[in-house]
Amino acid sequence: MNRLRHLISVADLTTEDVERLLASAEAMADGDAAGSLEGRTVVNLFYESSTRTSSSFELAARRLGAAVTTVRSSGSSVEKGESLRDTIQTLSAYDPDVIVVRHPHAGAPDVVARHTAAHVVNAGDGKHQHPTQALLDLFTLRAALGRLDGLHVAIVGDVLHSRVARSLVQALALVGARATLVGPPTLVPEGLGAPVSHELAAIADADVVYVLRMQRERMAAGASFVPSLREYAARWGVTPERLRPGQLVMHPGPMNRGVEIDPRVADSEASLVVDQVRSGLTVRMAVLHEFAGTRAAEPLEVA
Amino acid sequence: MNRLRHLISVADLTTEDVERLLASAEAMADGDAAGSLEGRTVVNLFYESSTRTSSSFELAARRLGAAVTTVRSSGSSVEKGESLRDTIQTLSAYDPDVIVVRHPHAGAPDVVARHTAAHVVNAGDGKHQHPTQALLDLFTLRAALGRLDGLHVAIVGDVLHSRVARSLVQALALVGARATLVGPPTLVPEGLGAPVSHELAAIADADVVYVLRMQRERMAAGASFVPSLREYAARWGVTPERLRPGQLVMHPGPMNRGVEIDPRVADSEASLVVDQVRSGLTVRMAVLHEFAGTRAAEPLEVA
Amino acid sequence: MNRLRHLISVADLTTEDVERLLASAEAMADGDAAGSLEGRTVVNLFYESSTRTSSSFELAARRLGAAVTTVRSSGSSVEKGESLRDTIQTLSAYDPDVIVVRHPHAGAPDVVARHTAAHVVNAGDGKHQHPTQALLDLFTLRAALGRLDGLHVAIVGDVLHSRVARSLVQALALVGARATLVGPPTLVPEGLGAPVSHELAAIADADVVYVLRMQRERMAAGASFVPSLREYAARWGVTPERLRPGQLVMHPGPMNRGVEIDPRVADSEASLVVDQVRSGLTVRMAVLHEFAGTRAAEPLEVA
Repeated sequence: MNRLRHLISVADLTTEDVERLLASAEAMADGDAAGSLEGRTVVNLFYESSTRTSSSFELAARRLGAAVTTVRSSGSSVEKGESLRDTIQTLSAYDPDVIVVRHPHAGAPDVVARHTAAHVVNAGDGKHQHPTQALLDLFTLRAALGRLDGLHVAIVGDVLHSRVARSLVQALALVGARATLVGPPTLVPEGLGAPVSHELAAIADADVVYVLRMQRERMAAGASFVPSLREYAARWGVTPERLRPGQLVMHPGPMNRGVEIDPRVADSEASLVVDQVRSGLTVRMAVLHEFAGTRAAEPLEVA
Repeated sequence: MNRLRHLISVADLTTEDVERLLASAEAMADGDAAGSLEGRTVVNLFYESSTRTSSSFELAARRLGAAVTTVRSSGSSVEKGESLRDTIQTLSAYDPDVIVVRHPHAGAPDVVARHTAAHVVNAGDGKHQHPTQALLDLFTLRAALGRLDGLHVAIVGDVLHSRVARSLVQALALVGARATLVGPPTLVPEGLGAPVSHELAAIADADVVYVLRMQRERMAAGASFVPSLREYAARWGVTPERLRPGQLVMHPGPMNRGVEIDPRVADSEASLVVDQVRSGLTVRMAVLHEFAGTRAAEPLEVA
Repeated sequence: MNRLRHLISVADLTTEDVERLLASAEAMADGDAAGSLEGRTVVNLFYESSTRTSSSFELAARRLGAAVTTVRSSGSSVEKGESLRDTIQTLSAYDPDVIVVRHPHAGAPDVVARHTAAHVVNAGDGKHQHPTQALLDLFTLRAALGRLDGLHVAIVGDVLHSRVARSLVQALALVGARATLVGPPTLVPEGLGAPVSHELAAIADADVVYVLRMQRERMAAGASFVPSLREYAARWGVTPERLRPGQLVMHPGPMNRGVEIDPRVADSEASLVVDQVRSGLTVRMAVLHEFAGTRAAEPLEVA
């Protein structure tokens, strides 16, 4: 068995890695591996606010028996302007087995990996990558549809700023599925490795409609990628009327009900949103379990 | 034994429930039941700041062996505007056994209970209810006075905004005790199920004087329920001179020394304040233990 | 064996205490004493932000098997203006074995000790004391140089505002080592029990150069202790050129790279910074272990 050293990008994964991790996640759901991280230490380092991702990693680590410490940028010396590198060297002195990091800047987890002997898991870095989200999405898809090969997923919305979309496009390719990116030209760029459509009608062909969060923060910042949330909802919001019978719907959360997703869709039988959260726990257990009993090896650069 | 499904309001409790929970809390104080929540998960969801209540629930859960995750509104996706309902569906996907919720809006715990299969404990919702506070107050009273039946408790101060007062009035009625509500007309309304007095002298008749916190926050908001804190203290502050020998004093904390309670009272032998905090831990262990080994059953509405 | 009641100031320690704690820390590094705080409760009460100190105490307590609760001033009733005394009485009602406290005001840990039966560990109070930092510095020095007796440590920078410097000067004296305080007259006062120099050249004679953090916060507050950070760095920054071959460098963190310490120094073989962090964990385990199985005895004043 060829284990991972870090999980920073879906690009680090082979098809075999994905298969192994999804199979492991199934075993986790069955309660195997409880205690497999007994005596191990997991550090969660969150430079961005998060409910579901941070609590999901915390619980995953605890269910495996690890000691977990979560460090948030608020209330920490991160606020005193300490560099990421020094923070990592500090935390690494406690000999953690795994460091889970979320950071607003793309590439930060690579910096972390260069300065620690721990395994590094990227829990989201800027608009770059969110690999455990992509894995949990695959896990959810396979559980719901019985297969991954040949599936077609339409990813709708703010692809431009979405690490979720970038990771998912790559992950789908690894398992023989394919994506189409759908949304207004200002939000859906070419060149991400999947065909693009600027018509919502393009979702008709898909098995699954994956709705991205419309980030109000970005709207507020004055960057007018869309005329208004109301107009966005009218033109691109996923409503029951716009779905084909039998199509499934996914969303990484948190949802803006009434903006990118109609509440009737969010709460319908077609929605896999709750399944995604549940899969997040088992997939993250599988990722942490992957690192049980090993060290990533010597860091490349340590002061 | 008829167990509770949720603990949202004192109105949900029968006299038998109260007796069972108080007896269970005594067993907790004796160290029984350690480990009874081993393998269980408790989620604390706090939308309002709190030291004593949140740390009390955390410690109670840990002493019973549960895995605990505390989610605060600050630093979470709650800040991103996620609805309470979606937050609950997210957290419920982790299969918690109990969700403890504090929320500034009355009724929020009912919303929580409608969207989760977990047992729900209300740790304070707006000015509505705070049932574990009422239970710990009963526990403290019985430990100090040897009985509950026939006791008379004068509740003094800002009854209008107090979930503690509302819960305690109901709880006293369940065990054969009674309350009198005492304070200025702007702060002590009729219709809460207990006689009202607008003269501090009315406390003379009581076995116990229960002093409510004067919420500076509300004063600052410009709502002039009282002319000034200084004037409030002069007229309604509980001083040694205003107490009858042998009367006991309680306060839910945190105290404003020198406002609603004189420091000499707070630190006197008459004060049960520290006992209340200690009871808080054992009573919350009893409440969590009540839910060990069961599920609340299917939620009424799940997307 | 004569155990400590509290650890509030280095002035509380004898040479024998220091020797015992350093020997105990070595045993901790070897993994002895795991589980020695099983069933014990440690409360961390942090009124100032901190990454390394709070996470170090948390992990130390967990590795010894204690249940740990961390209360921060943000998001707690501390914000509601509760007095330190009432907060301590509240937390003490949970029967913690140890309370670790960090507070912006000198003397706060003494107040804590007067109102609790728990052992109190000062994790930094204003510019007064930080005794576990001094102990970890001694531990690091002895591990690096094989001895403490006769060592000479030059402490460079903002001594005036530094609890680290105050504690370290006293600790060095206890073990037969000595300090020289080096920096501009505005930041390096006389009367701290060690000779003073206002020339950086004075570090030449030292075995170890201990660089203090230049607190940007203080600069921003308009108190112009130094003309500018740039000028400070030019005149007092510790660079490779200013060090003698073989001199070791320490820093309590977090570092301001390019201000008080040149990045080439921070990352050189001469730097003991990472060792200090690692020592922090074992030394804090030793301090907590010192208190295993005992109570501090009755508090002097309890309401």
